[in-house]
Amino acid sequence: MHQQSAAEYLAHGQIPFFRLPSAPLAAGLPDGTGAALLGVPFDGGTTYRPGARLAPWEVRRASALVQGHHALLGLDPFSALSAVDAGNVVFPPFDAAAVRGAIEASVAAVLASGAVPFLVGGDHSITLPALRAVAARHGPLAVLHVDAHLDTSGPEVWGDAFHHGTPLRHALEDRLVAPGQLHQVGIRGPLGSAGDVDVGARHGARVHGVDEVVERGGRAVARDVLSAVGDLPLYLSFDVDAVDPAFAPGTGTPVPGGLTSREALLLVRALAGVRLVGMDVVEVSPPFDHGDATSTLAAHLLFEGLAVAALARAR
Amino acid sequence: MHQQSAAEYLAHGQIPFFRLPSAPLAAGLPDGTGAALLGVPFDGGTTYRPGARLAPWEVRRASALVQGHHALLGLDPFSALSAVDAGNVVFPPFDAAAVRGAIEASVAAVLASGAVPFLVGGDHSITLPALRAVAARHGPLAVLHVDAHLDTSGPEVWGDAFHHGTPLRHALEDRLVAPGQLHQVGIRGPLGSAGDVDVGARHGARVHGVDEVVERGGRAVARDVLSAVGDLPLYLSFDVDAVDPAFAPGTGTPVPGGLTSREALLLVRALAGVRLVGMDVVEVSPPFDHGDATSTLAAHLLFEGLAVAALARAR
Amino acid sequence: MHQQSAAEYLAHGQIPFFRLPSAPLAAGLPDGTGAALLGVPFDGGTTYRPGARLAPWEVRRASALVQGHHALLGLDPFSALSAVDAGNVVFPPFDAAAVRGAIEASVAAVLASGAVPFLVGGDHSITLPALRAVAARHGPLAVLHVDAHLDTSGPEVWGDAFHHGTPLRHALEDRLVAPGQLHQVGIRGPLGSAGDVDVGARHGARVHGVDEVVERGGRAVARDVLSAVGDLPLYLSFDVDAVDPAFAPGTGTPVPGGLTSREALLLVRALAGVRLVGMDVVEVSPPFDHGDATSTLAAHLLFEGLAVAALARAR
Amino acid sequence: MHQQSAAEYLAHGQIPFFRLPSAPLAAGLPDGTGAALLGVPFDGGTTYRPGARLAPWEVRRASALVQGHHALLGLDPFSALSAVDAGNVVFPPFDAAAVRGAIEASVAAVLASGAVPFLVGGDHSITLPALRAVAARHGPLAVLHVDAHLDTSGPEVWGDAFHHGTPLRHALEDRLVAPGQLHQVGIRGPLGSAGDVDVGARHGARVHGVDEVVERGGRAVARDVLSAVGDLPLYLSFDVDAVDPAFAPGTGTPVPGGLTSREALLLVRALAGVRLVGMDVVEVSPPFDHGDATSTLAAHLLFEGLAVAALARAR
Amino acid sequence: MHQQSAAEYLAHGQIPFFRLPSAPLAAGLPDGTGAALLGVPFDGGTTYRPGARLAPWEVRRASALVQGHHALLGLDPFSALSAVDAGNVVFPPFDAAAVRGAIEASVAAVLASGAVPFLVGGDHSITLPALRAVAARHGPLAVLHVDAHLDTSGPEVWGDAFHHGTPLRHALEDRLVAPGQLHQVGIRGPLGSAGDVDVGARHGARVHGVDEVVERGGRAVARDVLSAVGDLPLYLSFDVDAVDPAFAPGTGTPVPGGLTSREALLLVRALAGVRLVGMDVVEVSPPFDHGDATSTLAAHLLFEGLAVAALARAR
Amino acid sequence: MHQQSAAEYLAHGQIPFFRLPSAPLAAGLPDGTGAALLGVPFDGGTTYRPGARLAPWEVRRASALVQGHHALLGLDPFSALSAVDAGNVVFPPFDAAAVRGAIEASVAAVLASGAVPFLVGGDHSITLPALRAVAARHGPLAVLHVDAHLDTSGPEVWGDAFHHGTPLRHALEDRLVAPGQLHQVGIRGPLGSAGDVDVGARHGARVHGVDEVVERGGRAVARDVLSAVGDLPLYLSFDVDAVDPAFAPGTGTPVPGGLTSREALLLVRALAGVRLVGMDVVEVSPPFDHGDATSTLAAHLLFEGLAVAALARAR
Repeated sequence: MHQQSAAEYLAHGQIPFFRLPSAPLAAGLPDGTGAALLGVPFDGGTTYRPGARLAPWEVRRASALVQGHHALLGLDPFSALSAVDAGNVVFPPFDAAAVRGAIEASVAAVLASGAVPFLVGGDHSITLPALRAVAARHGPLAVLHVDAHLDTSGPEVWGDAFHHGTPLRHALEDRLVAPGQLHQVGIRGPLGSAGDVDVGARHGARVHGVDEVVERGGRAVARDVLSAVGDLPLYLSFDVDAVDPAFAPGTGTPVPGGLTSREALLLVRALAGVRLVGMDVVEVSPPFDHGDATSTLAAHLLFEGLAVAALARAR
Repeated sequence: MHQQSAAEYLAHGQIPFFRLPSAPLAAGLPDGTGAALLGVPFDGGTTYRPGARLAPWEVRRASALVQGHHALLGLDPFSALSAVDAGNVVFPPFDAAAVRGAIEASVAAVLASGAVPFLVGGDHSITLPALRAVAARHGPLAVLHVDAHLDTSGPEVWGDAFHHGTPLRHALEDRLVAPGQLHQVGIRGPLGSAGDVDVGARHGARVHGVDEVVERGGRAVARDVLSAVGDLPLYLSFDVDAVDPAFAPGTGTPVPGGLTSREALLLVRALAGVRLVGMDVVEVSPPFDHGDATSTLAAHLLFEGLAVAALARAR
Repeated sequence: MHQQSAAEYLAHGQIPFFRLPSAPLAAGLPDGTGAALLGVPFDGGTTYRPGARLAPWEVRRASALVQGHHALLGLDPFSALSAVDAGNVVFPPFDAAAVRGAIEASVAAVLASGAVPFLVGGDHSITLPALRAVAARHGPLAVLHVDAHLDTSGPEVWGDAFHHGTPLRHALEDRLVAPGQLHQVGIRGPLGSAGDVDVGARHGARVHGVDEVVERGGRAVARDVLSAVGDLPLYLSFDVDAVDPAFAPGTGTPVPGGLTSREALLLVRALAGVRLVGMDVVEVSPPFDHGDATSTLAAHLLFEGLAVAALARAR
Repeated sequence: MHQQSAAEYLAHGQIPFFRLPSAPLAAGLPDGTGAALLGVPFDGGTTYRPGARLAPWEVRRASALVQGHHALLGLDPFSALSAVDAGNVVFPPFDAAAVRGAIEASVAAVLASGAVPFLVGGDHSITLPALRAVAARHGPLAVLHVDAHLDTSGPEVWGDAFHHGTPLRHALEDRLVAPGQLHQVGIRGPLGSAGDVDVGARHGARVHGVDEVVERGGRAVARDVLSAVGDLPLYLSFDVDAVDPAFAPGTGTPVPGGLTSREALLLVRALAGVRLVGMDVVEVSPPFDHGDATSTLAAHLLFEGLAVAALARAR
Repeated sequence: MHQQSAAEYLAHGQIPFFRLPSAPLAAGLPDGTGAALLGVPFDGGTTYRPGARLAPWEVRRASALVQGHHALLGLDPFSALSAVDAGNVVFPPFDAAAVRGAIEASVAAVLASGAVPFLVGGDHSITLPALRAVAARHGPLAVLHVDAHLDTSGPEVWGDAFHHGTPLRHALEDRLVAPGQLHQVGIRGPLGSAGDVDVGARHGARVHGVDEVVERGGRAVARDVLSAVGDLPLYLSFDVDAVDPAFAPGTGTPVPGGLTSREALLLVRALAGVRLVGMDVVEVSPPFDHGDATSTLAAHLLFEGLAVAALARAR
Repeated sequence: MHQQSAAEYLAHGQIPFFRLPSAPLAAGLPDGTGAALLGVPFDGGTTYRPGARLAPWEVRRASALVQGHHALLGLDPFSALSAVDAGNVVFPPFDAAAVRGAIEASVAAVLASGAVPFLVGGDHSITLPALRAVAARHGPLAVLHVDAHLDTSGPEVWGDAFHHGTPLRHALEDRLVAPGQLHQVGIRGPLGSAGDVDVGARHGARVHGVDEVVERGGRAVARDVLSAVGDLPLYLSFDVDAVDPAFAPGTGTPVPGGLTSREALLLVRALAGVRLVGMDVVEVSPPFDHGDATSTLAAHLLFEGLAVAALARAR
């Protein structure tokens, strides 16, 4: 088995993602690696409660409890993908531009070795460089953006063009997203102004608010996304604040009224069949978590994403 | 904009509700104020876990994160209502009768200036004096009471006629409620005895238990309430323990099996069209909260209520 | 009334389950006792996060808030059953085989006196000796097993045949369960391997995964169980990790995507009509709980089970 | 042995103070009872963070860990005193005057049976009625008052003459304290005004601030107190906020710079030789405690006080 | 009185530092202001656990409990200094150089109006711009730096010259500190290398490790500092991690073996007589605090500093 | 440098003790390894609050913050000892005898390779097999046992001869300890009976209670121990509950009145000069910890012990 057994895990005494083999990126990924998990301990783009920099360690710890057989999809994504823990992205922590550069380079290295990158943030500002690297390899992407917030703010809000409220604006404006292929699910709550939706609207973004998920069901929404995406390469960016604070208390900008954990897991699982080329889970903030609920949910979301990627690879 | 910008808010260094202008009630509300938020830091009527006295400060802090544009209803209730933070009701904390007197006088002052009062408790005993003041101005009221408990206890339970389990009994017996116009939503869990429902039943109260909300949907229940209320002035009293402890852990008498935060927000939003003349959110107990989940939910419930009031004013 | 009044409870200063009379089992249960609550403070069978040994005290404390009248079923189960708090099972804590022996003997003593046993664990390994005692009295049982996990592991996983991941395997292999009468509800998440489901399958176990509960509704699933069980004596084993960590954070092996507390309570309540001969609530781990959410839910689950037993007795 | 063994304790499943026999006061104390522990779950006199009403249950739970042999003083105070858990004082919770009446009557009943009362608050307002009852029996008392605050406020501060900041003022003015026999240890931090010390000064109170304890040592301070007290009956009122928040985080009005737990325990132990006629430990607020630190400290402070009482009785 | 009364404070409903008048700096400080408290909600210079950005709000809330009369020094520093809450420094949060510029300008504005600045961080990187502004007005300063760490790191450690481990290096190298006038108290724990002490040593810094404080007493250490400082203007920079995590758990880089809260308060108080021209309290990280212990200690440290400044002004 | 740099550590993304090289024991320790850190995730010997099984992971995480240069002793123990993280001891978790066997074998393997073992528990029952292995190599040992409890219980207490209250009894009776060479420091609190001290007394154990440490100072006590030990090989067993719960809240059986963290660190450091042949830190229980205080303290205690071992090796 690819995942360590309980005994092997105990003997090592340390905690890679999902008890997978450790393969720090700098040394080159092992041949045949189909998926690489990368921690990105950066929260310098946070506007409110920080802490997301600590998530890679806590998600590693919580993920040790996750076993390997996906009963509903009938496969072990860890084995199917020869997945590894590629360590954390290395960067000088006080230079946000250099951080973005390091993330982009690391994701590019994963892609170059033929593996699908799975990033564990960090705050949502880490998504922009990941999208740059993935789009550089695969061309303009379909993006499924699961979040409570639109994340298309401009520099007028906090006096800076790059922070955790802006990645999708840059992705749209820099044409990393294929036309009409930004799908935003989970959006809710008050906005800064009526004009906030204009940025996405200009680029044909489709917003599926929480109420739509509730009324039509997550499966129907996923079906819409799948049919719109078709064969395009899809990047999934999952901000845990899309999920209600009851299920994901450990996050920086909580908004009540969100997805349940069941809806969230179902949504990712429903992507089975898509060509998944990258995924991130961001905005897990351990200092505000309780009993590892949010870190554990993040691990299960990654597990579902890995299963989707394994299915894509199997085709 | 009526709400402070992030920069103005930082410069002030303090935290009024929703970053609104501070306008302590004693100095008189500014002309044109359409809604006044009032903290009521009193939990001397609590039978079990105390702490609700600390809620006004924590809800203020959590509400700073709430922006102003209500995307679904298409308005900014803060601007539409020229809402202000009117400070806290002032009272001698150890004399419950004097506390009730101070609340009634403060709410009366808000009403006299033409504004709609929004109270942030405190325990549920603060609702009785609020209802007295509102009924004194508007006549017998329709009351939407969202709660896990009936709150129609008599003095036989704890040896006192006035505490957080009794406000609705007094409201009914003192005819502050129009005949048949007490609507109770979210009720669940074991009662003290089969006779507990008799008080409400004698006055035509309509009980919508949690199971009904689940089966028929919150929207259908809200529609029933709306159609029963018609043009009567409506007071909304929202006890956060109506919501499940998963979504609202910070409360004194938790009962599992409650509303989700989505159902709770939808229920308030669904009142759009009613003549809302007052609202309270009570029983938020910060010492039992986690990651501000309950305070944040309370802020969003108030935001929805403000939007309903703004629509009513706009007519 | 059977339950102490608030005043009686205060005078005693201590906390039996649901403020019921204390009747330590060693002294013999009072005549006419229809239900006996038994704490089982053992977590020596835990593979991951321990703490369930502390649950009997915390559930006692949380249960003091639960009143006696079941409004939906129209009865007071405490009075109807002359229920008592029979204390904790006594055992030498470091000898797991002796612990199992003590539990089996205690449950047998409860049954011998004509009462229905309600166990408050403790980890899930306490269920096996309970099932032994109940099956010894009533013959092969129908078992409703509510859990996130199958709990049919073998000794190959942790090098031991008896721990909290194995009770149902023994129950099946030792024919404590009537053929085809293991009903497993709430199962979800990754398994260790595709073969994990084989143990149950060989004995005709029926698995109702979370997705089925969501799609068909808990009531429909309960109806299936009821119709399959018929007049067989039913034992209900409720592992709180069946419920989502949002509603039951205080547990050792949390799995996101679980039942809501409403679904959980409804599921137990829907057993009304069945011949309930025993129940346990296990895997409540207070060190990971918050604001008593999990202990309070456990108390309410027991209350629903007591009501079902009271109805069975009334027939 | 007087204290239950671990096995007896497990069999009972409940938690009396120190695993002592339960002997609710209303039924009369058993013959020969030398000390009665009484819970007083009242925090209606709290000016800031409430929660002390929950302390009697938590201190009972934490005290189960305390064994019986006092190695330094060479005795088992539980056996020496035939100590019992006399339950909680019963009162109507919303009528502070009635609460004080009930406490006074309960303490008087303990004294009438020949036992020494040990009260577990509750907030500090419970001390006044206890002092009334003890002084009624023993005449004007020496009082050792360990606290961060003077507790001699008048009605001008919060508009009420009776709350947790006033008990010592009443005790002095009502001559429950013998002239010059109020000894205040642990006082520190800013006062409301320079006049705050005048109340005590007029009655000859001696204030031993924290700095004096640090410089001269707690033993020296205790020696001063002992030599001043002589053969007078001594009542010890211990407000846990005398101890630094590091050691006693679970309290309502924390003041940094306080006693260490070692100094606090030593201070009580150093009273060996005095005629201790009553003791209370107040202001333990479990919602703000962590890992039972404060409840555990309270239990050990009571244990030291019981040992002092046992020595007094042995003479 | 200068501080609001409890009633005034309740009426306002908000929480300025110590219930002082609110006087946002942008509007100019009131005439005669002798001390201005300034929040600096920035933690972009943190290397490990973030959260200090949230401290200004929490310290404001905790400081509301602090009364005004300093019994040991015999004065009310709030009145003596006509102290105000000058709000928070305003800055664009993602540009660290601009943040430093804004802090320097704000402190300069406070000084220009004749008031002494008291900064509430934020992380320790905020101290450098404060020192720049104070030295610009008063010339090279004596600096008392209370900390577990030397904070004289260079860019080789984290690839950046400006973060929370570097302020004292810049202060020395830029000659903001008078020769031989950096006094470092509380230093302890392992260093990065033996060369870490060289930076300070080259500039004559005097290090008083924790062991020296324990052995000689804080008062003796303070006396050394006072005698070395003489009439020089003194800036006090207090990093709460100088205090042991038991007393100050809410901080980012905890080091066991630190000062007690008593030693910390005594150390500041012992500066009475010095010419205090500025003070900061930094590295309070509320997400890691418990029961407001660290925020409350920070408030008391500021109170002692204000008293020292009041004495200096009185001369 | 032996310890990873911050950048190397980030790149690895995982957390070995002190950022040391990972060298799982099963593969053989690298040549020249002078010290091996071993996690022992077992808490099956706990009588009260469990959780110590989780400590190896949390201490690893907290230890990442500890740098390498010991300023007071003037050396880098990591480099001096070529220390490694040897992973966790592997065992079948439900068979306590097998666990003890595995620990003994692992420690023997470390010793056989010439390294000094440093164990991170787990509960205190892990010390007995460690002592067996160390005594097998070095002959009867001097043992410094730092603890709140004597840990010399017999099977009469909990019906079992081997648990966390018994290791020192076996060590004495099995003559693993040289005559008169058990030194117990930190003992305090009530005992089960006056006879508890007899076991140690029969073997000449020397007890230094907390009061002695306070009065004579930790350094004097350490000096006594050092002079009694002389050239004997010394094993140091450090139960964190020796330290006061204020400094070490994360433990299972807290006793107030304990050592401060400063005294604890000083005590270990004062062993400089002794021939340290093994050390353990046990009873860290992360579920009851706060802000990593106890895990961080455990890491620093190990650091001091490593420095002592490095000095011994250097001789």
